[in-house]
Amino acid sequence: MKDPPGYFPRIFGHEAIGVVESVGENVDEVIEGDIVIPTFMSDCGECTDCKSKKSNLCSKLPFKVSPWMPRYETSRFTDLKGEVLYHFLFVSSFSEYTVVDVAHLTKVDPAVPPRTACLLSCGVSTGVGAAWRAANVEAGSTVAIFGLGAIGLAVAEGARLCGATRIIGVDMNPAKFETGKTFGVTDFVNPGNCGNKPVSQGWGKTIVLGVDKPGSMLSFTSHEVLHSGKSLMGSLFGGLKAKSDIPILLKRYMNKELQLDEFVTHEVRFEDINKAFDLLIDGKCLRCVIWMNK
Amino acid sequence: MKDPPGYFPRIFGHEAIGVVESVGENVDEVIEGDIVIPTFMSDCGECTDCKSKKSNLCSKLPFKVSPWMPRYETSRFTDLKGEVLYHFLFVSSFSEYTVVDVAHLTKVDPAVPPRTACLLSCGVSTGVGAAWRAANVEAGSTVAIFGLGAIGLAVAEGARLCGATRIIGVDMNPAKFETGKTFGVTDFVNPGNCGNKPVSQGWGKTIVLGVDKPGSMLSFTSHEVLHSGKSLMGSLFGGLKAKSDIPILLKRYMNKELQLDEFVTHEVRFEDINKAFDLLIDGKCLRCVIWMNK
Repeated sequence: MKDPPGYFPRIFGHEAIGVVESVGENVDEVIEGDIVIPTFMSDCGECTDCKSKKSNLCSKLPFKVSPWMPRYETSRFTDLKGEVLYHFLFVSSFSEYTVVDVAHLTKVDPAVPPRTACLLSCGVSTGVGAAWRAANVEAGSTVAIFGLGAIGLAVAEGARLCGATRIIGVDMNPAKFETGKTFGVTDFVNPGNCGNKPVSQGWGKTIVLGVDKPGSMLSFTSHEVLHSGKSLMGSLFGGLKAKSDIPILLKRYMNKELQLDEFVTHEVRFEDINKAFDLLIDGKCLRCVIWMNK
Repeated sequence: MKDPPGYFPRIFGHEAIGVVESVGENVDEVIEGDIVIPTFMSDCGECTDCKSKKSNLCSKLPFKVSPWMPRYETSRFTDLKGEVLYHFLFVSSFSEYTVVDVAHLTKVDPAVPPRTACLLSCGVSTGVGAAWRAANVEAGSTVAIFGLGAIGLAVAEGARLCGATRIIGVDMNPAKFETGKTFGVTDFVNPGNCGNKPVSQGWGKTIVLGVDKPGSMLSFTSHEVLHSGKSLMGSLFGGLKAKSDIPILLKRYMNKELQLDEFVTHEVRFEDINKAFDLLIDGKCLRCVIWMNK
């Protein structure tokens, strides 16, 4: 496979909220003026997997890192000279207008402030979903989170929402513990201070989230992990089904059960998008909202 | 850890059925004359894990490869000179008399023929349990089994019992397909005939069973396995809780729902135990019952 970043010029961005400006043929799920959240994961609602409770991996429009629109594998973007502009993760939201397949759109309640609703487009919902849907955390559980970035903190928030009584944050940066407390982290472990004692003890279910370097390998002794009753589970988008689960999470936010406001640490105008990248690189923000119209 | 086979002399054997000859102090769960199945896994019934539905890994008497009795870590065996004889997997059944902790014993219905009941002491119950308890196979499921030895065939039998409609056996030996049909295998894949096509396609839950070489490593690209929604789960004893699950399986055998007889391909007298080892090494048998009293 060609390394995806090789496709340029390209419209990046995949975490967003927007207003439907117009709809294509055969689309009746949304109409002009609807507020929608785009997601890199499709939810066609028709295939075996979308109908099953066992998976959120749509098999009709399966996830892949593609420079095209899904379904027809074409681009709907061209520059002023008529040259192709590539898509990104089926969303391409760093733009005032974009084209998104309806299978990648979730209609949401317009009463939810866009500043926080947009968080459910990817990162925060992935973390919350990992605790809620992928791990199926039950009341009274103990949860350990390795890495307290925005996604890890969203896992803590999801675990708190599910009633976990002990939420252990594991991070090399002790400052993360203070931030973690806001999202329900009750205990903190710095692996750098553990000496020869392993951070992990006992059996349990491990959910792997996020994206690592292409080609990176996972290696472990099979005895250690598999004969001790541990399990290792992959998940995309935290196991959430976009069209059914995002509205549930937004409702819980409106009921003040789910915290979202605390994730928005910065806001910039679209013309200042590079400031947002700087904040990301410096690890200075949890989520920075980029406004198109302010 | 010292390599366990270094402990000699030792009483081997861990798959058996027997009669209680006498009971120790504070034991009221079984009495003299009870028919019991010993298991290498304990089921104390009192600890958090034994009380939980999430695990069959007793935390009061956790499984380990030990040359001793559990609980006090002593031997109850000596030779004629008074020298220590080591235990094996808490069972040591290649002997007319053995000493087993009550947490490792399941009392069973004496009406079940010992010839087949003994199969639930380890291998067959591990395979059946892997489909039933660990994988939680549902009616209409598709199950693939890599390796059609006795354990793999027991997985097929468990999957059949759970109502799986498609049971795919994967083995390098084409002769295994005929054997497999008896236990519900509906399709057969020989990886040697697949060319460049991968044997596995699609997402799913992988249950790892059995014991591999000490120190052997599992390595895979994290993207391939984890970002495609697959999960990898370890299990000991197929996720079964001995004291509650073995009686259920025996009842289903007596109701002719679970096939056990077909696993017993050979029977020998105790004095011919080395013939049983030869059959094992030659891959000639599924299960060989060793009779103490015939």
